[in-house]
Amino acid sequence: MIYLDNNATTKIDERVLDAMMPYFTDEYANPSSMYNFSKKASNALKEARGVIKDFVNAKDEKEIIFTSCGSESANTAIRGVLNYNKAKKHIITTKVEHPCVLNLYQTLEKQGYKVDYIGVNSNGDLDLEQLEAAITSDTALVSVMWANNETGVIFPIQKISEIIKSKSPETKFFVDAVQVAGKIPMNVQEMGIDMLGISGHKFHAPKGVGALYVNSKTMITPLIIGGHQERGKRAGTENVPYIAGMAKAAELAIDSLNYEMTEVKRLRDKLETTILKRIYNSRLNTGVANRVPNTTNIGFEYVEGELILLHLSDLGICASSGSACTSGSLEPSHVLRAMNVPFTAIHGSIRLSLSRFTTEKEIDFVCDKLPEIIEKITAISPYQDELAALKKLKNK
Amino acid sequence: MIYLDNNATTKIDERVLDAMMPYFTDEYANPSSMYNFSKKASNALKEARGVIKDFVNAKDEKEIIFTSCGSESANTAIRGVLNYNKAKKHIITTKVEHPCVLNLYQTLEKQGYKVDYIGVNSNGDLDLEQLEAAITSDTALVSVMWANNETGVIFPIQKISEIIKSKSPETKFFVDAVQVAGKIPMNVQEMGIDMLGISGHKFHAPKGVGALYVNSKTMITPLIIGGHQERGKRAGTENVPYIAGMAKAAELAIDSLNYEMTEVKRLRDKLETTILKRIYNSRLNTGVANRVPNTTNIGFEYVEGELILLHLSDLGICASSGSACTSGSLEPSHVLRAMNVPFTAIHGSIRLSLSRFTTEKEIDFVCDKLPEIIEKITAISPYQDELAALKKLKNK
Repeated sequence: MIYLDNNATTKIDERVLDAMMPYFTDEYANPSSMYNFSKKASNALKEARGVIKDFVNAKDEKEIIFTSCGSESANTAIRGVLNYNKAKKHIITTKVEHPCVLNLYQTLEKQGYKVDYIGVNSNGDLDLEQLEAAITSDTALVSVMWANNETGVIFPIQKISEIIKSKSPETKFFVDAVQVAGKIPMNVQEMGIDMLGISGHKFHAPKGVGALYVNSKTMITPLIIGGHQERGKRAGTENVPYIAGMAKAAELAIDSLNYEMTEVKRLRDKLETTILKRIYNSRLNTGVANRVPNTTNIGFEYVEGELILLHLSDLGICASSGSACTSGSLEPSHVLRAMNVPFTAIHGSIRLSLSRFTTEKEIDFVCDKLPEIIEKITAISPYQDELAALKKLKNK
Repeated sequence: MIYLDNNATTKIDERVLDAMMPYFTDEYANPSSMYNFSKKASNALKEARGVIKDFVNAKDEKEIIFTSCGSESANTAIRGVLNYNKAKKHIITTKVEHPCVLNLYQTLEKQGYKVDYIGVNSNGDLDLEQLEAAITSDTALVSVMWANNETGVIFPIQKISEIIKSKSPETKFFVDAVQVAGKIPMNVQEMGIDMLGISGHKFHAPKGVGALYVNSKTMITPLIIGGHQERGKRAGTENVPYIAGMAKAAELAIDSLNYEMTEVKRLRDKLETTILKRIYNSRLNTGVANRVPNTTNIGFEYVEGELILLHLSDLGICASSGSACTSGSLEPSHVLRAMNVPFTAIHGSIRLSLSRFTTEKEIDFVCDKLPEIIEKITAISPYQDELAALKKLKNK
């Protein structure tokens, strides 16, 4: 099995599992209990909070809230800040946010919020002029993903923050960092981020744990109301094993950042350039620069993406056409549509996302097999005339 | 270490851990993905849903929503049903609900809801006449815990449902079943329950997973808005290992229900009667009947509960004075106050909660040690005259 869908989820690092095990066995106390037995569990929470603080470069560990997933982090941040100050009803986000976040904004529109969706160019880069023009003193929130899950394109977070703060200092800035955690360095202070959400299972921790950074100047109401956990910002007995595991995963991610940005990038680039070279009806759907090191999004003209994925799956290769949250849908990706990827390629676009566990041998195997698959599928495409013309053009 | 705080959390059953392990290692796929590799993960979810459906005796597995904890289940049910139909602004609950649920209702009061809190008598039994009188056609929701976490007292859920449905058929009925799951049988259909919440870590699954039953006639809005997971009722990549683990825990709970209701009950009764017999300044804070089999709440007159717990902790015995969510607070329990436990005993009340892992040897040890501890603490109580009078009275 060759797993090239690490933007959907990742394999748990064995060292993460090791870090969780004591809390699955002997150290099972409720960390809120008063007796000695709960000390190790409550210390694990305290230590993990410090690690995640360092992971995002927050000022204070009180600014870290543990959640059950990236979606909960986003809902807590977005709805928390809007609920806390109900006077402002304007939100700015992008056309290419994760479908989960877009879905939340569509719900908020029905509840009376006005939401502006900022577009991107054909490279996937955000239209900063449109963003700047949209900001007013009535803007409660600007919500921008750090990197896109489908294309890997990185948005200029620090620049966006500067634009926001210069036009409307009171406007809060939420960054969905799910797709950058573990791939590039994060520094919420330098970047001027008010709230930032991450999800453990995107960086080799388990599914079912996330974190939310909320800086000390940003007030939110809790999403899950109840007990005093997380300083009253998130009720519910803490998931000690997963929180300890996510902290371990964050430590490992910090340690392997350099590897991600050099070796994982090298393998991604090798995969990408080989495919683009060997397959005449392929195209890179983004620019080459400003991307997380593990992701490539390639379109294959005049063929069906689902068919490519099926053939890959038969060979034990896991890839996807977009977010797992929308898989099964036959609609072409909203991200690629926003980038105006031509209709000839949009249906045949796939995302390949690597991790630090991806090997050169795996990449070589995919470089060997994918051209054969595309050739086979292309042969049965109804667009043979267009394909012949394309081939001629490329051979020039 | 002797763990008698199983109402706060429980030890994970080894068989539960075994059931989770494959999803921590080889089977790490995102269950929403389309390739073959995700089949085992998505099948695990499907199977778990069937098991939890059987655990609560629901009609259809579509009525089961997986959540991250009991608090999330309660928030989803309560706020989901109120949000779906905003016309009705009246809620009925009890004075002795879990502090997390009470906290949510206090928040809802600030948002314009009228909440009636039904009282209990000195045995801890609910005032059904008061409940009946409070219900009107404007009542959106009645929310009652199945068993109290501090006292173990079971409320007559079926009777309450009948009262609700005969007075106001449209009113929805939410039952917080966190403290009964695994202790007594649950049948949502027979009991006439519209929504029911459980938490995995109270029945030997890990902390960080729960479930919510919502019958097919009850409409709710989601709490965590985003992806299509859980049929649009709860966004977020599913926590496959914990969901599989909770299903295993539910199967084991079904298998050991009889043991809970006979053997665990026998040990609880032995502990309780021995303490009450050997310690003259002790009193049972509830009636003897209508309780879950694992819990006893005993008051020690004229002494401080925290001091008892400290001495127990020094001997490696874990017990508590109330919910872990409010531990550290010096206020006497709201549950015991609602029961009018006399002020002479309310500060010296402790909860002992057993599990199927509790042994006779452990109970015998506590039966031996607790009288010594109480004697020692009683000797330094400033209420020696009152204690002498009490002793005289008991010896008669």
